[in-house]
Amino acid sequence: MDFELDATTQDLQERLWDFVDNHVVPAEPVFHEQLGTGEERWAWSRAPVLAELRAEARSRGLWNLFLPQEHGDLGAGLTNLQYAPLAEITGHHGLLAPAALNCAAPDTGNMEVLAMFGTPEQQERWLRPLLDGEIRSSFAMTEPDVASSDATNISTSIVRDGDEYVINGRKWWITGAMNPDAEIMIVMGKTDPGAERHRQQSQVLVPRDTPGLTVVRPMHVLGYDDHEHGGHAELRFEDVRVPVSNLIGGEGEGFAIAQARLGPGRIHHCMRSIGVAERAITLMCQRVDSRVAFGRTLSQQGVIREWIAESRVRLEQLRLLVLKTAWLMDTVGNRGAHSEIQAIKIATPATVEWILDKAIQAHGAGGLSQDFPLAEQMAGIRTLRFADGPDEVHRNSLAKAEIARQVAKLS
Amino acid sequence: MDFELDATTQDLQERLWDFVDNHVVPAEPVFHEQLGTGEERWAWSRAPVLAELRAEARSRGLWNLFLPQEHGDLGAGLTNLQYAPLAEITGHHGLLAPAALNCAAPDTGNMEVLAMFGTPEQQERWLRPLLDGEIRSSFAMTEPDVASSDATNISTSIVRDGDEYVINGRKWWITGAMNPDAEIMIVMGKTDPGAERHRQQSQVLVPRDTPGLTVVRPMHVLGYDDHEHGGHAELRFEDVRVPVSNLIGGEGEGFAIAQARLGPGRIHHCMRSIGVAERAITLMCQRVDSRVAFGRTLSQQGVIREWIAESRVRLEQLRLLVLKTAWLMDTVGNRGAHSEIQAIKIATPATVEWILDKAIQAHGAGGLSQDFPLAEQMAGIRTLRFADGPDEVHRNSLAKAEIARQVAKLS
Amino acid sequence: MDFELDATTQDLQERLWDFVDNHVVPAEPVFHEQLGTGEERWAWSRAPVLAELRAEARSRGLWNLFLPQEHGDLGAGLTNLQYAPLAEITGHHGLLAPAALNCAAPDTGNMEVLAMFGTPEQQERWLRPLLDGEIRSSFAMTEPDVASSDATNISTSIVRDGDEYVINGRKWWITGAMNPDAEIMIVMGKTDPGAERHRQQSQVLVPRDTPGLTVVRPMHVLGYDDHEHGGHAELRFEDVRVPVSNLIGGEGEGFAIAQARLGPGRIHHCMRSIGVAERAITLMCQRVDSRVAFGRTLSQQGVIREWIAESRVRLEQLRLLVLKTAWLMDTVGNRGAHSEIQAIKIATPATVEWILDKAIQAHGAGGLSQDFPLAEQMAGIRTLRFADGPDEVHRNSLAKAEIARQVAKLS
Amino acid sequence: MDFELDATTQDLQERLWDFVDNHVVPAEPVFHEQLGTGEERWAWSRAPVLAELRAEARSRGLWNLFLPQEHGDLGAGLTNLQYAPLAEITGHHGLLAPAALNCAAPDTGNMEVLAMFGTPEQQERWLRPLLDGEIRSSFAMTEPDVASSDATNISTSIVRDGDEYVINGRKWWITGAMNPDAEIMIVMGKTDPGAERHRQQSQVLVPRDTPGLTVVRPMHVLGYDDHEHGGHAELRFEDVRVPVSNLIGGEGEGFAIAQARLGPGRIHHCMRSIGVAERAITLMCQRVDSRVAFGRTLSQQGVIREWIAESRVRLEQLRLLVLKTAWLMDTVGNRGAHSEIQAIKIATPATVEWILDKAIQAHGAGGLSQDFPLAEQMAGIRTLRFADGPDEVHRNSLAKAEIARQVAKLS
Repeated sequence: MDFELDATTQDLQERLWDFVDNHVVPAEPVFHEQLGTGEERWAWSRAPVLAELRAEARSRGLWNLFLPQEHGDLGAGLTNLQYAPLAEITGHHGLLAPAALNCAAPDTGNMEVLAMFGTPEQQERWLRPLLDGEIRSSFAMTEPDVASSDATNISTSIVRDGDEYVINGRKWWITGAMNPDAEIMIVMGKTDPGAERHRQQSQVLVPRDTPGLTVVRPMHVLGYDDHEHGGHAELRFEDVRVPVSNLIGGEGEGFAIAQARLGPGRIHHCMRSIGVAERAITLMCQRVDSRVAFGRTLSQQGVIREWIAESRVRLEQLRLLVLKTAWLMDTVGNRGAHSEIQAIKIATPATVEWILDKAIQAHGAGGLSQDFPLAEQMAGIRTLRFADGPDEVHRNSLAKAEIARQVAKLS
Repeated sequence: MDFELDATTQDLQERLWDFVDNHVVPAEPVFHEQLGTGEERWAWSRAPVLAELRAEARSRGLWNLFLPQEHGDLGAGLTNLQYAPLAEITGHHGLLAPAALNCAAPDTGNMEVLAMFGTPEQQERWLRPLLDGEIRSSFAMTEPDVASSDATNISTSIVRDGDEYVINGRKWWITGAMNPDAEIMIVMGKTDPGAERHRQQSQVLVPRDTPGLTVVRPMHVLGYDDHEHGGHAELRFEDVRVPVSNLIGGEGEGFAIAQARLGPGRIHHCMRSIGVAERAITLMCQRVDSRVAFGRTLSQQGVIREWIAESRVRLEQLRLLVLKTAWLMDTVGNRGAHSEIQAIKIATPATVEWILDKAIQAHGAGGLSQDFPLAEQMAGIRTLRFADGPDEVHRNSLAKAEIARQVAKLS
Repeated sequence: MDFELDATTQDLQERLWDFVDNHVVPAEPVFHEQLGTGEERWAWSRAPVLAELRAEARSRGLWNLFLPQEHGDLGAGLTNLQYAPLAEITGHHGLLAPAALNCAAPDTGNMEVLAMFGTPEQQERWLRPLLDGEIRSSFAMTEPDVASSDATNISTSIVRDGDEYVINGRKWWITGAMNPDAEIMIVMGKTDPGAERHRQQSQVLVPRDTPGLTVVRPMHVLGYDDHEHGGHAELRFEDVRVPVSNLIGGEGEGFAIAQARLGPGRIHHCMRSIGVAERAITLMCQRVDSRVAFGRTLSQQGVIREWIAESRVRLEQLRLLVLKTAWLMDTVGNRGAHSEIQAIKIATPATVEWILDKAIQAHGAGGLSQDFPLAEQMAGIRTLRFADGPDEVHRNSLAKAEIARQVAKLS
Repeated sequence: MDFELDATTQDLQERLWDFVDNHVVPAEPVFHEQLGTGEERWAWSRAPVLAELRAEARSRGLWNLFLPQEHGDLGAGLTNLQYAPLAEITGHHGLLAPAALNCAAPDTGNMEVLAMFGTPEQQERWLRPLLDGEIRSSFAMTEPDVASSDATNISTSIVRDGDEYVINGRKWWITGAMNPDAEIMIVMGKTDPGAERHRQQSQVLVPRDTPGLTVVRPMHVLGYDDHEHGGHAELRFEDVRVPVSNLIGGEGEGFAIAQARLGPGRIHHCMRSIGVAERAITLMCQRVDSRVAFGRTLSQQGVIREWIAESRVRLEQLRLLVLKTAWLMDTVGNRGAHSEIQAIKIATPATVEWILDKAIQAHGAGGLSQDFPLAEQMAGIRTLRFADGPDEVHRNSLAKAEIARQVAKLS
C-alpha cells in the first residue's frame, strides 16, 4: 500500500496546473465576452478563445486524458488512477478546463461508448471528430414521464422498419443538446418491450438534423440554464428515422452499454467535484480571513473554524475513496469496482454540497451571487444526487449486496 | 392555554383561501405573460393583472393585513397572532399573493417604519401612497465592503451640509430596487462615526430619481434574478443630496429604527416560509404517489415516507413556535419577544430548507427545474440564513442570554 | 389561541417546584444510602425516605396528578394540558419525583387501564392499592423472540382451560418487574391466533407469586440496570394459571387496550423528557461558564454557544408540540390526537438526545460519569427510540396518513 | 499509489484471524467466568485463560505488534501501515484480543514512551516486564479540577526536594489503574509553573505502592466501570515521593513526551474502532435479515438499507484516511502527519458512533443490553470524543493550520 502518486501523474499535475493557471483562468472573462446572446448563447463551443485553449492543450499533450489506456493510442493512455487527480484539477475551474482538454461530459462517455462498442464506420464518422474536438454530442436517456430511477421504465420506442429504426418518445435533461454543435445523439429506447427486463433496450445514433427530432426547450437547474455547457434540453422524437447501421452494439444491449458508461462517467464527476470542493475551501478560508465582525476576523470565530476543519476532514476521506475506486477499476475492472463506484456516487454530492453550503455561508449573501462561483457550483453538485439515478436507489442496491455478503458469513 | 385560532382569524383564513384559489392562482400565468422583457421585466408592479388582483383584495377587505393593530385604522387592525396564519397562506403562492394584499416585503417594513417614526409630512408624502399600493419602496442597508453580520460595520456616510444630507457609499442586495416603481428608498448610513457604537447610524428617505444615485446592477440568487419581485440591486450613492427633513426619527436613531423593523419583518418571513413548506409537502406527497419505480409507487418506499413524516413533525413544531412568538409580540411587545424572534429566525430556514430539499429529491431532476416552484423557493429560503444577519450571529446572541439566565440561578 | 398556562396549572407548578426543591432533591442522597444492595437493591419502593416523600406529596395535594379528569375523583382531576407542565418538572429530578407523586410508569398506565377497563373487583383488588401507592405493577408485552415493532408478532399464548387461563411465553424489558413489590403484572398474549390480526390478543392480570412465573434476569441499558426503578426484567411464563376473572376487558381486546394506554403513556414520557433536557441545558450553561481553556471560559467559545442556542431553539419547539398534543387529547380525544402523539413520540427522543449529547460533551469526561445525571439520562432517553415501537414504525405510519390526506386534495 | 496491503500484512492478517477465531473468541466466556467479583473484578490480568492466550499469541509471533520498527527488535518490527489492519482485527473482539497480543492501551503508549525516552535503568526495570506482559501500567494526566482540553491547565505539582520529587494533586479517568497489577504509573505534572507554557510539565514514574498514592474510586462510563480492562480510576497524590531517577526525559519535557505518545495512541484507537464498526455492520446485517415485521424481513425495509449503505460508505472512507495517516507516520514521521492524526481523531468517533447507533436501533431494545456488544462499544467509542482532548479543540487547531495554508496562497 502506497499513497504517493506516481511520477507520470505528478508530472502531469504540474503541467496541468501551469496550463490552467496561465491559460484557462485568464480565458474565462474572454469566454464570457465572446459567448453569444439569445439562441447563440448555447453555442459555447464557437467561442474563439476556446479553440485557442484547445490547440494549446493539445500541443502540451493535455488532450483526451480521460480515455483509459485499454483504448490504446486513441487517448492519452492513462489509467483511471492517473487521470483522477488531473480531473480534480479541471474541477477547480470547471467553466473551461474540461472542455479545453476535450475531457468534458457527456462527450467523454459518448467517446468511450463508441470506442468500446462502435463499428469501424461509426468510429470513423463520429468518434474521430469527437476525439479531435470538432463536434459535440449528447446522450439521451432520461424521460419526463417515468421515474428514471428505474432504468427499465424507459418508454421511448425504437421500432425496426426495414433498414431503418423509427424512434418515438420524449427525453429531457439531455445535457449539451441545446448547443447546435452537438451534432450527434446517442438515444436509448426500447426495441423489444417483451424481452427480459434488461434486454429490452437498445442505443442508436441520431444525428441532430434528423427530421422529427425537435429541441423543445432548455431545462433550468435552480435558475441556471447552463448555457456555457450547452444546457439541458427537452427533446421530442416523432417518427425519427435512422438507418439500422446506427445501432450501437446489438439490439437488447442498451442497458449493458449504459452500465458500461456509468462507471467512468461517475468517477470523472466525482473527481471534478472534489476539485470544486477544494476551491470552495480555498475561497472560504481566504474570505473569512479578510472580513471583520465584532472585532475579530471571521477566521477567528470557532464556528467557522469547525466548518473548515470538518470540510477538510470529510474531503480527505472522500478523495481517498475515489482514488481507491479508480485503482480498483484499473486492477479488477469496472464491474469489480461496482460497489465502490456506487459508494462514491453516494458520498461525493453529500460531502461537496455540505462544503459548498458552508463556503457560501462564510461569504454572506455574496456567496449566493454571480460574484463567486460557489452558487453555480452548488446547483451543479445538487444535480449529482439524481444524475444516473438518485442516491436512494444506489444506497438500496449497495445495502442489498452488503447484507448478502454479511449473511453469507453465517453459513 | 388554547391552540384554537380565534373566529376572526378563521374567517379571514377562509376568505383568503377563497381569494387565493380563485383569483391569485389563475392570475399567475397571466402575470408571466404580461411581465415585460429586458429592462421592463423589473417593473412587475405594472402588470395589469396585478392591479386587478389588488382591487379585488381591497374590495374583499384583504388589504394591509400586516400592519399591527397599534397603528389603528391605517391597517386592518389585526394582531400579529391573527396575521400569522394569513401570511402563511400567502406563502403557498408567493409569486403574487403577498403583493396582491399589499403585504409584500420590503414595503411592509418601510410602511411600519414610517407609521412609527415618520413625520406627518413624510407619512403624507410616502406612507399614504404605499398603503394605497400606488408606489413601491426599498430599504438600503447591506453593503458589499463589510461583514454585514455586524451592523455597526456599515460605512455609508450621511453628512449634514446646511439644510441637506449628503450621502456617499455602496449598497447591495437592495430588494425591489430594480423596479422603477420603487420610488423611495430608506437608506441607512453613519451620521456620526465618533458616537457610541449604536448611535452612529441614521436613516434617511432618498427618492429614486435623486441625482447621484445609480442602480449599478442586479444581484443573482442561485441563478435567479427575482425580477418578479423587483430583484436585488447594487446601488451607488455619490454625493446624493436630500433635504434634512428626509431624516427618519432623529440623528443617531438609525440602529434603533432598524431593530424595530426587524421583529415584524422576520416573523412575516417565517410565516410565509411555513406556507412554502406546506406546499412543498403537498407537492411531494402528490408526486410520490403518482410515480412508480421497481414495481411500487414511490409513496410506498420507506425512505420517502421517512422524509414525509419528518417534514410534518418538524413543520408542526416550527409553526407553533412562530405562533407563540406572534402572541408574545402582541402581549409583551417586540422587545419582550426578542429571544423568540431570534429563535424563529434560526429555526425557520433550517427546517424549510430541509423540507424543500426532500421535496426536490422526491421530484427527481424536475424538482430543480422551472416546472415546479420548489427550486426557486429553495433559493429564496436559502437567503434567509443571511438576511438580517447570519444565523450564526443570532445563535451566538441567543446563547449569551441563555447562559446569563442559567448562571443567574446559581446565586 | 393563547399560550399562557391557566391559573390552576401555574399554581400547581409553583407548589410542585417547592416540593421538589425542598423535599425531593434533599431526599436523593438519603435514598441512595437507604437503597439495599444485592437482590435488595431492586426493592427501591421500600426506602423509608420515599414513604415520607409520598406522604408529604399526598398531604400537599400533589398525588395522582396524572390521571385525567374523565376518571373523576380517582385522580386529581387535571386535564392532560394541565398535567403536562407538572410532569415536566418531575423530569428534572426523575430519580424520585415521579414516584413521590405516584406518577411513575408503568404504574400510571396500569392504573389508567384498570380505571378504564377493569371490573369493579379488579379495581378494588389492584387499582385501589396502586392509587394509594401501596403496591407496584408491571406491564408485560415485549418479547425477545420477535420484532416487537409489529405488535401482532406477539407469541405468548393465553389458552383458556375451564375457569382458568394458561399462559406460556417469554417476555423481556418488563420495567419495574425486578422489584419484589411489583405485585401485579398485566400480561399481553394471544388468546386466538386465528382471529383477525388485531383481535388475537388479550390482556390478563397475573399476580407476581403465581406458580410458573419466573423472573429470569435483569436487562441492562447501556450499563445501567435501573434498579432505582425496579429494573427491566426478563420473565418466563410456564403453564402459569390465573382465573378467567383476571381477564381485562374481553378476549380479543388486548390490542385495543394496549393502544388506549399508549397515548397518555407517551405524552408523560415526552413531558418528563423535556424536563430532562431543561436540566441538561441548565447544567451545560453553568458548567461552561465555570471552566477555562485557552484563556477564556468555555461559555465564550462560539461552538459551545451554538450548542446552547440550538438546544434552546429545538426544545421550545418540542415543548409546544407536546402541549398542543395534550390539548388535542383533551379536546378531541386520544384517537383524534393520534398523529400528534406519533409526532411527539418521534420528535422527543431525537431532540432530547441531541441536547444531552452536547451537555455531556460540554462536561468533558465527567459528563459520561456517575458525577452528573447526564449519562444515565442519556441511557434512558435512548430507550425511547424503541419503547412502544421504534420510531421508524411511527414515521412510516404517520407518513401514510399524511400522503393519504394530501392525495385526497387532488380529487 | 497502490491500495493493496503488502504480503507481510496479508499473512499476518490471516494468522491473526485464525488466532482470534480459534482462541480469542472461545476464551471470552471463560474469561467472564474466571474474572473475580468485588474488588477482585479489577484484576482482569490474573484470569488464567488470558495467560494461555498470551502464551499462544507469543508462540505464534503475534506479540507486541504495535511497536514501530524504529524500536528495532523490541517489538515485531512492523510499520504503522502494517500494524493498522491488524489493530483493526483486534477491535472486532476488543474484550481480550488487544491484551492477548500485548497491544492494549495504555500499556502500548507507556512502552513506547519508555522505549523512546527511558533511561537504560528505567527500561530494564519497567519496559522489560511490560514488553513481556508481566505487569500493567497507567498514564496519569487528566485532572478533575481543570478543563483538560487545554493541557497547560494541568495543576498537579512535582517539586524537587533533594534527590526526590514530591508529587501532589488529583487525577481521574486513569485507565487501567483500578487493576492491582498496574504496578507503574507515568504521572504528568508541573515542575516549573513559571516556565514557558509548554515547558512547565514533566513526567515521572510512580510505582503503585508508593506511599501517599491513593486509588480513590472507579469512574463510570455510561453505566460501565470497564473492570474487564482495569477501569478508570480517580487517584490522589499526597506528598508522594519518588527518586529523581524516575524522571522521564528531562524536566520541562513532559508536554513534548505527551505529544509524542499521542500520535501512535490515536491511530491505534482509530484502527480498533474501525474493527468495532465492522463488527457492528456484520451484526446489523445478520440481525435484520433474521427478523420479520409487517410481513417482510427488516433487511427488506428501505430505511434500514439506507443505514447499512451509509455505514459502509462512511466506514470505507474512514479506513482509507486512517491507513494513509499510518503511511504518513511511516514516511514523514509523526510530526509530519500531525494534521492527519487530528483528522482521524475527529472523524473516527463520529463515524463509528453513527454506525453503532444504527446497529443498536436495528437490534431493538436488545441492542442496548448486555446480550450484544454494541452498547458497551458505544460507551467506549463515546469517550473518544474527549480522550486526548475534545474534538472541538482538534477541529479548531486543524482549521487554523488550514486557513494559514490557504491564505499563504494569496501572497
